[in-house]
Amino acid sequence: MTEQANLNSKLGHPERSEGSHDPILLTPGPTIVPPEVRQALGRPMVHHRTAEFRAVLQEVESGLKALFKTSELVLILTSSGTGAMEAAAVNLLSAGDEALVIQGGKFGERWREICEAYGVKVIAVDPPWGKPLPPRLISEALRQHPGARAVFATLCETSTGVAYDLKAIRQAMGDCEALLVVDAISGLLAEPFDMDASGVDAAVCGSQKGMMLPPGLAFIALSPRAWEAAKSSRLPKYYFNLLKARASWEKEMDTPFTPAITLLVGLNESLKKIQGQGGVDRFVQRHQGQAQALRQSLQALGLQLYADPACASNAVTAVKVPDGVNGKDLISKIKKQGITVAGGQGKELSGKIFRIASMGVVGSAELDRCLQALTQALTELGWKAPSHG
Amino acid sequence: MTEQANLNSKLGHPERSEGSHDPILLTPGPTIVPPEVRQALGRPMVHHRTAEFRAVLQEVESGLKALFKTSELVLILTSSGTGAMEAAAVNLLSAGDEALVIQGGKFGERWREICEAYGVKVIAVDPPWGKPLPPRLISEALRQHPGARAVFATLCETSTGVAYDLKAIRQAMGDCEALLVVDAISGLLAEPFDMDASGVDAAVCGSQKGMMLPPGLAFIALSPRAWEAAKSSRLPKYYFNLLKARASWEKEMDTPFTPAITLLVGLNESLKKIQGQGGVDRFVQRHQGQAQALRQSLQALGLQLYADPACASNAVTAVKVPDGVNGKDLISKIKKQGITVAGGQGKELSGKIFRIASMGVVGSAELDRCLQALTQALTELGWKAPSHG
Repeated sequence: MTEQANLNSKLGHPERSEGSHDPILLTPGPTIVPPEVRQALGRPMVHHRTAEFRAVLQEVESGLKALFKTSELVLILTSSGTGAMEAAAVNLLSAGDEALVIQGGKFGERWREICEAYGVKVIAVDPPWGKPLPPRLISEALRQHPGARAVFATLCETSTGVAYDLKAIRQAMGDCEALLVVDAISGLLAEPFDMDASGVDAAVCGSQKGMMLPPGLAFIALSPRAWEAAKSSRLPKYYFNLLKARASWEKEMDTPFTPAITLLVGLNESLKKIQGQGGVDRFVQRHQGQAQALRQSLQALGLQLYADPACASNAVTAVKVPDGVNGKDLISKIKKQGITVAGGQGKELSGKIFRIASMGVVGSAELDRCLQALTQALTELGWKAPSHG
Repeated sequence: MTEQANLNSKLGHPERSEGSHDPILLTPGPTIVPPEVRQALGRPMVHHRTAEFRAVLQEVESGLKALFKTSELVLILTSSGTGAMEAAAVNLLSAGDEALVIQGGKFGERWREICEAYGVKVIAVDPPWGKPLPPRLISEALRQHPGARAVFATLCETSTGVAYDLKAIRQAMGDCEALLVVDAISGLLAEPFDMDASGVDAAVCGSQKGMMLPPGLAFIALSPRAWEAAKSSRLPKYYFNLLKARASWEKEMDTPFTPAITLLVGLNESLKKIQGQGGVDRFVQRHQGQAQALRQSLQALGLQLYADPACASNAVTAVKVPDGVNGKDLISKIKKQGITVAGGQGKELSGKIFRIASMGVVGSAELDRCLQALTQALTELGWKAPSHG
């Protein structure tokens, strides 16, 4: 493992966000908030309907467009990412509409729950958890349900550490009129994502992942086709009414309701940081390299990965808890060494996997410390790698 | 005016939040965020499902109960105050239900807009803007609509600077079964408010007013009767589903979706500050004293107040823009002296009033500086008080 750790260390990473003995947050949201962003969060409060704050909004908007790779407006919501998911559903659909939902994990299932809460008929598409999505599941489901109005997909399924291939999904949709709606909450900045070029009709994101911000902001962009659909959507909405949000923005660069000002000031800093480090493509490359190195190191330790390498995410790596080891004890022993990783979610995965996020500022120094802590924790728990056993 | 300003200065205020030449934010949300809270906002990020953060949540919950004066759970939402208003409507009502809405200003009207967006039949009760609400308007409307399921009211109508008498409203409701739902967003901590003793069934608040926090958090508490009503509500909801939020809280002191962690860490500081300064009653007293002194000072300057003194709010004072003065110019000249006050909202009041908030940490030092800036701005604009003219 030391060799692997050293190998990791050789992968350049732009900066060390925390001192080498500070606690390190490696959960798949929230992620580490870098010092310059934290400093921005502590600035004196400003009013949102002032020239100074509109200047922040203008910069933020331009930075968000670059992250989403869209020429469309990226709207800012004060909510968790789930709020933006709900906004996508309630602004594009009407009760009784049919929609395909790609599940495959807890967050794919969330799309289903939201649709069902609003009386949308869900056609579930169920790729095996941790495995790639066979595109024919989409084309077959659409053949059987040609009237489906939307396909709800996930860029990175945070619960399993799987990244789905959006281009393949779009292709499998053929020339059907359904809208492709993507949860890019944990995927943005870690997985390749190009909203306009991939034919994505609605993309949502949250602040507490690759954007290196605290939770509390969500983002949503719609394609021209999706904006058209929004005009005829009959689901009830008020706080998440996107036509109203767009009108406020276009009228006076404003949000319909008081936004989370502090987080937007912080976002402006984090967007500048991303830009200063070569922009979103460079971020994705770095995430790709370090997630790959992390997976190799974990396997070198004798651990098994949960997600098929063919679809393993750059944002979060799910690792099987080894036989004979209690998952909670393992996470707790890692935590005692200052490293917070996440467990599995829901009854399917709780206690069975643990997850290491490599998003945002996380670099090889942080991942090395995590691997050292993990090794020590496994030793303390009496585990021996099968190949060394 | 100098005498009045001196008089103001004599009213004790707990601390000066900003240096004497720093900009001062006197808008009715967001309000000044005190330094110790800002410092808390800049702390390293922690994960929300950890013992350390649950300890914060536990303290916050107990502090919120004290502010609301309720023994019921105060739920925390990541949204602006409007999100909590929507949560109240969609969790208590069903489409086609009748509800009374007390308007009287922009935020009273927001209750109507939310209800209408969800297909609730609104019976509008329209007290004249800036005037007290004659309680018979409520009793008469309920006589005509005995099946009304809710009465939507506002503690402090931020757009007009009016505080409504909730006890009188509750009394006028008699023994009808309608739920009393109160927007206490700007009123809490400035106006007397006792949720349980006043028979309030749902109270909502936002973070960026008396709580001295940035915007981004909202709060809602329901009475046992309201929780019962929530069980039979058929309006669609997901992000704002309160039964689900309560279940998460009761199961493991958790929120259903990632909360705005940073703001909650800040809230814990601001709640401690409120407690350390004698608690909510002492805050209300202080607000009462300084709003009264502010109104006297403004009148001594020869200005006219917008709200009837019988219902003037302690949180925000609306002042008529004097004849011959351009409201925008006035606010802009005050701003040049470092003081941000708010204009009037909507076509009814834009340019006709300006509003000075005296919430949270705002004390006589800040209000004195505002009065000085106002006097200078009026002089520069060539205005002379009628009595001095």
